[in-house]
Amino acid sequence: MVSAQTFRDRLRAAQRRAGTSLCVGIDVDPRRLPAGLSPDRSGIERFIAGIVEATSDLVSAYKPNLAFFEALGKDGWDLIESTRRRIPSNLITIADGKRNDIGSTAERYATALFEVWGFDAATVNPYPGLDGVAPFLANPDRGVFLLCKTSNPGSADFQDIQCEFQGQRMPLYEVVARRALSWNQRENVGLVVGATYPEELARVCDAAPGLPLLLPGIGTQGGDVEAVQRLIGASDGPPVVVSVSRQILYASSGDDWAAAARRETEALRTALDGRRGWAKLGGRAVS
Amino acid sequence: MVSAQTFRDRLRAAQRRAGTSLCVGIDVDPRRLPAGLSPDRSGIERFIAGIVEATSDLVSAYKPNLAFFEALGKDGWDLIESTRRRIPSNLITIADGKRNDIGSTAERYATALFEVWGFDAATVNPYPGLDGVAPFLANPDRGVFLLCKTSNPGSADFQDIQCEFQGQRMPLYEVVARRALSWNQRENVGLVVGATYPEELARVCDAAPGLPLLLPGIGTQGGDVEAVQRLIGASDGPPVVVSVSRQILYASSGDDWAAAARRETEALRTALDGRRGWAKLGGRAVS
Repeated sequence: MVSAQTFRDRLRAAQRRAGTSLCVGIDVDPRRLPAGLSPDRSGIERFIAGIVEATSDLVSAYKPNLAFFEALGKDGWDLIESTRRRIPSNLITIADGKRNDIGSTAERYATALFEVWGFDAATVNPYPGLDGVAPFLANPDRGVFLLCKTSNPGSADFQDIQCEFQGQRMPLYEVVARRALSWNQRENVGLVVGATYPEELARVCDAAPGLPLLLPGIGTQGGDVEAVQRLIGASDGPPVVVSVSRQILYASSGDDWAAAARRETEALRTALDGRRGWAKLGGRAVS
Repeated sequence: MVSAQTFRDRLRAAQRRAGTSLCVGIDVDPRRLPAGLSPDRSGIERFIAGIVEATSDLVSAYKPNLAFFEALGKDGWDLIESTRRRIPSNLITIADGKRNDIGSTAERYATALFEVWGFDAATVNPYPGLDGVAPFLANPDRGVFLLCKTSNPGSADFQDIQCEFQGQRMPLYEVVARRALSWNQRENVGLVVGATYPEELARVCDAAPGLPLLLPGIGTQGGDVEAVQRLIGASDGPPVVVSVSRQILYASSGDDWAAAARRETEALRTALDGRRGWAKLGGRAVS
């Protein structure tokens, strides 16, 4: 980690090294562990270790989702620490906790995620406004992905509501994108946009040109792979992090789960980044 | 705990027993511990134990803010468990984590907060929409306080934006209030409204009549005590939880901190609930 770099630079560098925008989402549900693993701390630890080992030369980032760790109680908080440490330091670690609060309390979350646990980036909920987001943005080399248009059906309930903003009419998610652009004073602000919503994705790119995008929703959720491919392929496009969880983690429920996760990751990498990255790297990342 | 009751019933019953709407927010910052306490796990544990012991017969609820625990790393997650257990079971415990995510992941947070840690209620961020909120609402005896109009200055950035909703023009926080009312199928939905915004508070009461309100912002943040008193005093008003943190926790930086916290709690209780509750209870809660 070169601390004089901004988060945006670090993300670009990690993606260049790995030759891919692919990120593995670590959403470990003990009820879904494959054969041969016990649904307890030791089984989960072995599972996470196996997934990281099988995929870390094929991806540029990992995104542990804190909810799955939190549901394990105290064990979960040991596991989040061991998981973060297990990820090679040349890759980007994104704490997917969608945390936020008002100013002085948001500062505690930023401390927890970036200093105590040592993540490179975090997903943050924008609803409390700038004084709740600012503490996460204090350090230029740590990144924030603000929830903008989430991948779920319920995202329409608030995010699609038409708003009046700066004399124009636009959906709330676009207001979030525009505010995010104005808050990007240290090159460390990005946005979360579900790949399940390609039209909204295009609109966000127009509203906040150049901001890094975290795109969940490919795979199990049925997101639009072609829209994501176009975005990745565009020479003037923003840095894009394509996060896939269940399709990789649960590629097999048998005892070949690690090999199956690797095959799935390879296939996704080829599909997303095309022959270009794949040929260049010969199927293995340059470290 | 009577599980056949809804959260709303349980909240009302706890407030009736205690004779007050006052809630202590447990936001423990190790940098602000009073004299004689070490800024580590043991000092924090002694502080929380002392605060609960000094105030639990004077309040109806406690609201630990998870950010402060999370910033302590693994120790924090032991402490959140011991804190929840320390609170007498006849009082309401509110996990202030402002968590949320999309459907299946929100279910993991709900499990963590209500089953693993055993809280009675949680603050929840509405931004992901209904499928993100629904998992928290599955059990009628556990309550959700959705962020509506937060107490901080930045709350204007998104929450005050004018929206079009069901053919009307209204600020986003009012859209949240209206949706919350429609989601209240099990009598377990409430709203967070900063006591720093009395006009918005009145508007929320009109938009979502009867929904329980969690009101932070009294005390250090300078919220409107009279507006809160009127709300508590209204015979047809909703259940109101008035949460005060720093004014109680840090009432003294000397070694009289527990006695000072008690005095401050007594004064707040009298100011909020008036002679009525106070005279009835003779300064001690009926258990």
